[in-house]
Amino acid sequence: MARSGFLGDLLTNLYGRGKWSEGAMERRPIEDLCLALLSAAGEVSGLKLASAIFRRYRGMSPEEKLAFFTFLNERLDVDAAEVAGLAQAYAEARTTENFAALVRAAEPGRQELFRRLHQAPGATAELVAARVDLLGMLEEHPELKRTDMDFVHLLRSWFNRGFLRIEQIDWNTSAKLLEKIVAYEAVHEIHDWDDLRRRLHPEDRRCFAFFHPTMPHEPLIFVEVALTRGVPGSIQALLEEDREVISPSDANTAVFYSISNCQKGLKGVSFGNFLIKQVVEELSLALPKLDTFVTLSPIPGLNRWLKTLPDDRRATRLLAGKATAVEAEAMAARYLLEARRPDGYPRDPVARFHLGNGAMVHDVHAGADTSENGMGQSCGLMVNYLYEDGQTERRHESFTAEKKIASSRSVRAKARSEKGSTAAAKVSPPASEPAS
Amino acid sequence: MARSGFLGDLLTNLYGRGKWSEGAMERRPIEDLCLALLSAAGEVSGLKLASAIFRRYRGMSPEEKLAFFTFLNERLDVDAAEVAGLAQAYAEARTTENFAALVRAAEPGRQELFRRLHQAPGATAELVAARVDLLGMLEEHPELKRTDMDFVHLLRSWFNRGFLRIEQIDWNTSAKLLEKIVAYEAVHEIHDWDDLRRRLHPEDRRCFAFFHPTMPHEPLIFVEVALTRGVPGSIQALLEEDREVISPSDANTAVFYSISNCQKGLKGVSFGNFLIKQVVEELSLALPKLDTFVTLSPIPGLNRWLKTLPDDRRATRLLAGKATAVEAEAMAARYLLEARRPDGYPRDPVARFHLGNGAMVHDVHAGADTSENGMGQSCGLMVNYLYEDGQTERRHESFTAEKKIASSRSVRAKARSEKGSTAAAKVSPPASEPAS
Amino acid sequence: MARSGFLGDLLTNLYGRGKWSEGAMERRPIEDLCLALLSAAGEVSGLKLASAIFRRYRGMSPEEKLAFFTFLNERLDVDAAEVAGLAQAYAEARTTENFAALVRAAEPGRQELFRRLHQAPGATAELVAARVDLLGMLEEHPELKRTDMDFVHLLRSWFNRGFLRIEQIDWNTSAKLLEKIVAYEAVHEIHDWDDLRRRLHPEDRRCFAFFHPTMPHEPLIFVEVALTRGVPGSIQALLEEDREVISPSDANTAVFYSISNCQKGLKGVSFGNFLIKQVVEELSLALPKLDTFVTLSPIPGLNRWLKTLPDDRRATRLLAGKATAVEAEAMAARYLLEARRPDGYPRDPVARFHLGNGAMVHDVHAGADTSENGMGQSCGLMVNYLYEDGQTERRHESFTAEKKIASSRSVRAKARSEKGSTAAAKVSPPASEPAS
Amino acid sequence: MARSGFLGDLLTNLYGRGKWSEGAMERRPIEDLCLALLSAAGEVSGLKLASAIFRRYRGMSPEEKLAFFTFLNERLDVDAAEVAGLAQAYAEARTTENFAALVRAAEPGRQELFRRLHQAPGATAELVAARVDLLGMLEEHPELKRTDMDFVHLLRSWFNRGFLRIEQIDWNTSAKLLEKIVAYEAVHEIHDWDDLRRRLHPEDRRCFAFFHPTMPHEPLIFVEVALTRGVPGSIQALLEEDREVISPSDANTAVFYSISNCQKGLKGVSFGNFLIKQVVEELSLALPKLDTFVTLSPIPGLNRWLKTLPDDRRATRLLAGKATAVEAEAMAARYLLEARRPDGYPRDPVARFHLGNGAMVHDVHAGADTSENGMGQSCGLMVNYLYEDGQTERRHESFTAEKKIASSRSVRAKARSEKGSTAAAKVSPPASEPAS
Repeated sequence: MARSGFLGDLLTNLYGRGKWSEGAMERRPIEDLCLALLSAAGEVSGLKLASAIFRRYRGMSPEEKLAFFTFLNERLDVDAAEVAGLAQAYAEARTTENFAALVRAAEPGRQELFRRLHQAPGATAELVAARVDLLGMLEEHPELKRTDMDFVHLLRSWFNRGFLRIEQIDWNTSAKLLEKIVAYEAVHEIHDWDDLRRRLHPEDRRCFAFFHPTMPHEPLIFVEVALTRGVPGSIQALLEEDREVISPSDANTAVFYSISNCQKGLKGVSFGNFLIKQVVEELSLALPKLDTFVTLSPIPGLNRWLKTLPDDRRATRLLAGKATAVEAEAMAARYLLEARRPDGYPRDPVARFHLGNGAMVHDVHAGADTSENGMGQSCGLMVNYLYEDGQTERRHESFTAEKKIASSRSVRAKARSEKGSTAAAKVSPPASEPAS
Repeated sequence: MARSGFLGDLLTNLYGRGKWSEGAMERRPIEDLCLALLSAAGEVSGLKLASAIFRRYRGMSPEEKLAFFTFLNERLDVDAAEVAGLAQAYAEARTTENFAALVRAAEPGRQELFRRLHQAPGATAELVAARVDLLGMLEEHPELKRTDMDFVHLLRSWFNRGFLRIEQIDWNTSAKLLEKIVAYEAVHEIHDWDDLRRRLHPEDRRCFAFFHPTMPHEPLIFVEVALTRGVPGSIQALLEEDREVISPSDANTAVFYSISNCQKGLKGVSFGNFLIKQVVEELSLALPKLDTFVTLSPIPGLNRWLKTLPDDRRATRLLAGKATAVEAEAMAARYLLEARRPDGYPRDPVARFHLGNGAMVHDVHAGADTSENGMGQSCGLMVNYLYEDGQTERRHESFTAEKKIASSRSVRAKARSEKGSTAAAKVSPPASEPAS
Repeated sequence: MARSGFLGDLLTNLYGRGKWSEGAMERRPIEDLCLALLSAAGEVSGLKLASAIFRRYRGMSPEEKLAFFTFLNERLDVDAAEVAGLAQAYAEARTTENFAALVRAAEPGRQELFRRLHQAPGATAELVAARVDLLGMLEEHPELKRTDMDFVHLLRSWFNRGFLRIEQIDWNTSAKLLEKIVAYEAVHEIHDWDDLRRRLHPEDRRCFAFFHPTMPHEPLIFVEVALTRGVPGSIQALLEEDREVISPSDANTAVFYSISNCQKGLKGVSFGNFLIKQVVEELSLALPKLDTFVTLSPIPGLNRWLKTLPDDRRATRLLAGKATAVEAEAMAARYLLEARRPDGYPRDPVARFHLGNGAMVHDVHAGADTSENGMGQSCGLMVNYLYEDGQTERRHESFTAEKKIASSRSVRAKARSEKGSTAAAKVSPPASEPAS
Repeated sequence: MARSGFLGDLLTNLYGRGKWSEGAMERRPIEDLCLALLSAAGEVSGLKLASAIFRRYRGMSPEEKLAFFTFLNERLDVDAAEVAGLAQAYAEARTTENFAALVRAAEPGRQELFRRLHQAPGATAELVAARVDLLGMLEEHPELKRTDMDFVHLLRSWFNRGFLRIEQIDWNTSAKLLEKIVAYEAVHEIHDWDDLRRRLHPEDRRCFAFFHPTMPHEPLIFVEVALTRGVPGSIQALLEEDREVISPSDANTAVFYSISNCQKGLKGVSFGNFLIKQVVEELSLALPKLDTFVTLSPIPGLNRWLKTLPDDRRATRLLAGKATAVEAEAMAARYLLEARRPDGYPRDPVARFHLGNGAMVHDVHAGADTSENGMGQSCGLMVNYLYEDGQTERRHESFTAEKKIASSRSVRAKARSEKGSTAAAKVSPPASEPAS
């Protein structure tokens, strides 16, 4: 049995009797290398090919990368007609062979390609980086979403919870990693090392990150935690330079005040919920007096929503900086409890995240984030989401299945105080669950 | 939107308002738990369900396990008719939606179930253990091979080369791990700690194993290596109690004399080739004078083959213990170079492994393993497979694509010396490559 | 300024203009090398000399070593006349200079030599090994005790508590270290790896050792601990092969059943007390339900003592194996509470150790160690010493200052039951403290 | 046997039958606690006393500390008359007992006190801190030098080379430790984290520190190294922000451009020489192409010396900033080769350090450190000291014994160019060794 065509040539080049150089292989189009990798009989030849493909990919221009992803999207797609035929055959005779043929045909070839590429040393990071490129193309080339779906499918499998390792980040952490924390912080910018020190070093502060075994020096996501007495209502107070540090054993509340995803290329692979759950667990074990786990979160979509209400006097006053704290909190509560996307889920992305994790809307605070960013997105308002022990699974299911937004009595009262006095008919009616 | 039927009930049980105990969940059939896990909206509720499923599985009788796998095999199979329809639709309109629907439908539901189960702590080991059960059922229930195919598909992804970590096993290794090495050694039994010490402690001995991050205390495969001057032809001499230890820097040859797979449940996920390649790399770096990497391997199928040749005088003499060393080696060489399975690959499983890795048959030795096991399987004969730098990829491809068996001149000469004088017409003609 | 004589020559050899080889240095007597090391102006030249001295020492015959220690003892002693003069001078004028001169002169030169030797890599182990040699000479050459005193003085300083690091020894410990545990066990021989496993692996067993930073792979002392319910009275029962393992959280008692010093060369540098105290602390933290810390100890001097009482009928019966358990325990109690050395401290060395640590004699048991060794030294009797929280300092001081032996009421009763009926007038009266 | 007086009382307090509180002990003068610690029979009671003494010491005012050190200096001094008598006795009869008595009496009691204090957890750092206090008193209370001598004697023993552990400091080092590096840098200030990063992170930079096992988070001394091609003559160029990083394998020179002692309390315990030697060794192993090990060092005493030469026209010109580079270097060379202290050793402390380590004066550079500090102490001049393989021991001995200053031909030429034209008769004649 001889292999014909380009693959035979290529293999001769690759492993041939010394006649052709490795350089010869390098001159072949990357598409050929990919097909060769898919055709290679086993893992033996695969490593060299996979490394060569990554090397080639790294050197490509944006246009070349687009062409490459288009190749994956079209040439390594499923053959629908073949699948239809094999499905028919399997429907008629459920043999192992028919099953195997169907399953193989129904999986796009690029999935197997990604898996084979993943054998190379350092491949995980290479693939995650390639996906960043792909994500940047989707808006202009939405058909590439098919390839992205396969990407996500595999990344979810490889970044499965079982592989993640939690690590505490503190002042004993290496400068190299701390630099990345500074760079990746997405919520409240870390200005310099002194600022970082204030967030990591005091004994009433904690930071935890998830890592993956194949990218041991790259945090995937991290959360910054403040240990406090009572639920705080202002990020300024929480991060103040000269605030008084309390003893961890005196704290009753753990405040998740910043959660940052670090890897763009892992969009769609969710870590946040697992991280919060595990941090709750670790802190509960270490500090048994903690009884409240709560966030202090931004409301990134508030101002955008207010601007959709030009006829609402209170919205206008709030945007104009003329609202009282009571009025402001009323609008924020209404936004969080009532403003919905067409699919019925909350408008606010941070709300979707925490409610989806099983948290509830606990309180809203005016004047809580007076930074330029905080004023610009939410007129300085912030929100606490509460993770209540023993309630998160039920709330998660209610939220996911029925879109119910769990909220505290006081937040609902704030939202109602607003409603009586306004005609914001656009807002869909709340399906709030009577949570507390 | 409300969920109806058993899932709604179950979720009410699970997360409901404190009315039902967790015990209530425990009384539901495991199949219900699996369907609930598949229906659960997100990872939040999944962890509890996954843990409950594993707990239930562990307590099941063999019959219950068979019923469970049958459920996975039938109920969580692909719906072939649906796939056929969706493939048709995608053939007509290659939209992202059609693609997504097809891909989802064409993947058996049990794959998603396995992935969700994999989120639970310790899930990897649980799944590997469950597969051991499944493998035991395949002979009597070959239809379950469909489920096993899905198992292997995922395990290959999770035990991808990128996740494996090599570790040297030596006298600094923990007793806990060394116990496992003793238990898992599959080729040349380790009799006691003194025997183990002789294999790990002397400076001319090495042992390396692969580990996986989710099973950090469980070796997946390990190889024992002897550093020697020249290629050895006897396992007794290699493992002799009072042999002279040589300085590693004096060695020119590394002998892989035992390779043991440790995890039955990972059958079909191959590690051996990667391990050998990496050990060659590590040893080459540490000991630049090493120029020969060779095995000293058993020939497990020789005697069985000899018994298929009742009319062959030499085979009979060899089995009767009456053959000379020259005659014995001639028969072994012939077996290794010529005895084929119906599919054209070598009869001998160890030969298939090393030749598939790109090694060549280097030499055969009579009187090389005089243990009961060695006499019983191969009349005491052993073989060296040679891993030749720069040749393994090419040989691997030749072997895989064309079934060519690479061999040394001397082994071919030994095989020929036999052929002239025998009428073993059953043996198919060799396709040996002129390797050296 | 030139240095004259042998040192000048030697330094010329050592560092000279390439004329002389290092071999030349090697031919000089070790005494010359020592004097050169003492004369060397600084640490620069010292390392080479120190290494050369150790190399030479290792190659010496016993006679040469004796000559070497005699040199240290005589030539590097204090010059008493000089000291007397300098002391006189300092008495007359307490200047810094006079003080410095006196202190320097009053310290034997060999102490400075040992300190300078200690600069070489690996020197700690070399010096400890050299002391083993010296200890072997003391009986025949008691005058060498002066040198040994200087040795101990420095070793105590270098093996100061602050330098010791405790480590748990368990089944995760390396085989290399476990081998040493087997070799060093001095109380109840470890027969093989299965025996070792039974002492380290079960969750109701613990083992802790002290290590020193300069000898990281050499345990200094280790203690084996059993976690039990109640105070045990038999070593056989404690080490039984098929005994039932209990959960550590069910244990109320920690039994120190074997304490072994590992380094002969550190005789006189005591670690045992610190180790016991720290293990008590670590176990108390980890297992708060433990309320009793007790030993199960041999009585190594009992039979020897019994033999000094040829006229005592009960002693004779006990030695003849004819005593009842009650009689045997009575004799053992009497021995422990009353048998004294001329200096007033207990005859029994193990008793001196534990009482000196502040423990009390808690109970004695017949038939507790029926091994050959146990029968030979104490007719199978063993003793529990109790380390009572909050009492050890006081008991230690009473014992050390007033030779009071703390004991339990029951042990005193056992001892009394014996006394009434015997005329062992040789035994000095007890000064037992009414402890419990 | 009862103990009388304060010790008996104190022990009763400490361990007594619960009558007195630990607070009672705390009210006793620290001197009593010290005497009790010295009288305590063993290590058992010692730990509590030692901890109490440290606690007390930490709370003392400067005056109280002075009183305490005076107590140590006077009350715990040697009894000269007793020593004289015991020396006499030993001169007459060299028995072990006489020797023991003499040695014990001739060692000031405070040494034994320090050793017993050293048993407490964390004691090393406490003692080092106490010595910082003591050093601050010596100028006004020179008689306390006797106590300081004993301090140094013990610290040298405890900080013996054998205990020191070298560690590389780089960007993987913890922020906590890096903060200390920033704080302790004594030669060229580290301005911020970016500056630190430039010294630690680039692959042509290295930093190494010594640590002690009892103070694992406290560097004792560290050296910063630049890998270069050729010997550099300017610290500005070496530390430039945008300089080109070279591959370590291209470097032929390792430049020690900053050496900082971190622990004031360890003054007189020298680490620098050992650190340099070990770094040379480690770098030589890792980068075999390195053939030159050289410093780029400040000349801290140059300007002070120039000012002692008011009549020297060139000195005046140099101080006035009017000298040419040639003139400046000539003066610096003359200073380094000829300016001596009354004891004959070089005036310059950095010169004494490196020459004492066996280095030679290799070159001088004008305009090498134009920082305020560099201009203020040495008119911007710097010097290279060369550590020449195989020459350091000899040079060290020549320097120490004969005060010979090893120097290169070019430096000597520079110094001579100066001499011809000046009448600086005060400068003593050089004893430079013809080194290269």
